Amino acid sequence: MPRRSLALSRVYRLLEPGPVVLLTTSRNQRPNIMAMSWHTMIDFEPPLVGCVVSDRNHTFGMLRATRECVINIPTVELAPRVVACGNSTGRTVDKFSAFRLTPVAAALVKAPLIAECYANLECRVIDTRLVNRYNLFVLEVVKAWIRTGRKRPRTIHHLGGGAFMVAGKTIRLPSRMR
Amino acid sequence: MPRRSLALSRVYRLLEPGPVVLLTTSRNQRPNIMAMSWHTMIDFEPPLVGCVVSDRNHTFGMLRATRECVINIPTVELAPRVVACGNSTGRTVDKFSAFRLTPVAAALVKAPLIAECYANLECRVIDTRLVNRYNLFVLEVVKAWIRTGRKRPRTIHHLGGGAFMVAGKTIRLPSRMR
Repeated sequence: MPRRSLALSRVYRLLEPGPVVLLTTSRNQRPNIMAMSWHTMIDFEPPLVGCVVSDRNHTFGMLRATRECVINIPTVELAPRVVACGNSTGRTVDKFSAFRLTPVAAALVKAPLIAECYANLECRVIDTRLVNRYNLFVLEVVKAWIRTGRKRPRTIHHLGGGAFMVAGKTIRLPSRMR
Repeated sequence: MPRRSLALSRVYRLLEPGPVVLLTTSRNQRPNIMAMSWHTMIDFEPPLVGCVVSDRNHTFGMLRATRECVINIPTVELAPRVVACGNSTGRTVDKFSAFRLTPVAAALVKAPLIAECYANLECRVIDTRLVNRYNLFVLEVVKAWIRTGRKRPRTIHHLGGGAFMVAGKTIRLPSRMR
């Protein structure tokens, strides 16, 4: 599935609608995947993202130690595998192998892209002041990728309790918001 | 439109999917409304929310001074009025009056609920450490309201450039995520 570089100024359009994402990290050549819904844009360009990674997650220690990750955005076709990632832990499971996901080398960070995802955002941790209190990391997106030749992606959005909203139709309104 | 109190432990289910929200504030008996998409859950209970309010917005000064606000969640029927709120500034426009939105007294904060919205979260600012650098406020939801007798709301999700995704169908998967 060919992908192209996406202008960093366009990254907010991927994260603002609130999709479930898959956060990848890598430490000592061992990559991991975590499902995540707690993220927000913080600035447009360079794109800054705030995300909360529970200190009970295996990813927490990897992210704090390596200060690098990739935010991968899946579409509804991957929903069962997203849930499988959320239901298991990287302490005992190699999720790439167990859930048939393909790691692809990133350009600027050690954490891998997930080939099956619609978009991939390579990130560096730039602020950890709120990590001790809230597990909140501030990330800078340093490189963005998007699949080519694809219509509006049907992202999934976590509603809790096993329910997910699937992105519906797009409407256009005369908004002057960016 | 009758509304009931919502358990604070359920608040995350409203914000995790990433809806556009309307943030209300009030200062010197003058309420204001801002459209916002940059928010994330930070903790389940008490529910903590991170949100970014640009220091170019009239709401920024009101929020920093009063340390109180309400997060109101609109559905697609209100989309034109949400966009109108986003396209104007409280410095010169009384948005409640101009866009036919109804302020309702909150229980615990001075900022008003918007009656036409599906849900309303009364919030207090509890951490401003990242305000100077990122305009990022940490809020605690102290009281939550939801409209009674209503099916899954059709929230709107900002895609940028005048486009909004409308919440589509709900799917269920065996997720063990909360």
